[in-house]
Amino acid sequence: MSKGRLFIISGPSGSGKDTLLVELFKIHPELKFSISSITRDIRDNEKPGEKYDFISREQFENMISKDELLEYNVFVGNYYGTPKAPVVSAIENGEDIIVEVDVNGASQIRMKMPEAVSVFILPPSFDTLKKRLLNRGTESEDRIKARLECALAEIGRADEYDYAIVNDDLQKAVKDLSDIISVDRLRVNRNQTLINSILENVR
Amino acid sequence: MSKGRLFIISGPSGSGKDTLLVELFKIHPELKFSISSITRDIRDNEKPGEKYDFISREQFENMISKDELLEYNVFVGNYYGTPKAPVVSAIENGEDIIVEVDVNGASQIRMKMPEAVSVFILPPSFDTLKKRLLNRGTESEDRIKARLECALAEIGRADEYDYAIVNDDLQKAVKDLSDIISVDRLRVNRNQTLINSILENVR
Repeated sequence: MSKGRLFIISGPSGSGKDTLLVELFKIHPELKFSISSITRDIRDNEKPGEKYDFISREQFENMISKDELLEYNVFVGNYYGTPKAPVVSAIENGEDIIVEVDVNGASQIRMKMPEAVSVFILPPSFDTLKKRLLNRGTESEDRIKARLECALAEIGRADEYDYAIVNDDLQKAVKDLSDIISVDRLRVNRNQTLINSILENVR
Repeated sequence: MSKGRLFIISGPSGSGKDTLLVELFKIHPELKFSISSITRDIRDNEKPGEKYDFISREQFENMISKDELLEYNVFVGNYYGTPKAPVVSAIENGEDIIVEVDVNGASQIRMKMPEAVSVFILPPSFDTLKKRLLNRGTESEDRIKARLECALAEIGRADEYDYAIVNDDLQKAVKDLSDIISVDRLRVNRNQTLINSILENVR
């Protein structure tokens, strides 16, 4: 059986990455999603094991020392990371798996798994990005300014990725992402079994 | 402006490659097609400059000596080759161009243009391949046997390609090929202008 693929998805605040992923999983229900391990407290709207596994600092540092993470970051005093085991096991089972990380996480994963395919989600323009961040309306001006600067710094590293998708029209962006995944399944090294079966029929 | 891409398409007799390409150009009329230069006589059903440019041995050997070909072969005493200039000019103009060559031609082109994307068209099974070759009904048993052996030798080199498409259901195969081309246009290095424009709006 041929191996699956790890797809790394990144995009700044305002890129609409989360909505895009929700739509992607409707089209590709067979896709696995890599659940992050994090040490911050669970929030009211969160369920354990849905997007995050909530673990203790000790458990997290134990994973670091055993090299059990594909990538990790510290953010406001808490650890955030991608456990290696579920990703490796999906790939070995021939399954495709999605990991959603920032540019730093993506860069760490690429070093450990250079065969991963990475996709950067872009807002259509600077103005739209600004509008999207302002429209949330829940944050202070300073906080929005910081988010905007952070977004631009991330976009400045988009060239580290294999693909870039502009999230202007959501349905078009979902199709682009879905096509990247479908087309990867046509790669020759994912079809060696089929090729061999045609050749073997001869002998 | 970002560059275009050269797509190399190969597939043995019986893979249905020609029909596939006709359908592809209906979906992607913007695609260019690389016209081969050949030294054999023109046939009744052929038009000069459609699929082939019919040139003299002297002209062809002149192109060889000037390194003006991306690849060439000798077949039954005649030269067949892919002129370099139209391919390079399409790519520089940001256009995608298709070249249809055999496995030897593909391998020569890859050495000169490693950034080319190559696709191998497969028959769905050995039995179907045999049936398709027999159904032509215009050739001797020996000739069919030779074609079949040649097809299997080509399939044995499918792993030199980036992608493999099984031509079982024609519409599915056309979509696969069309998607490979569309997805390539999402590559980050083909969208650097767009990324820069988002970043430049800030200053």
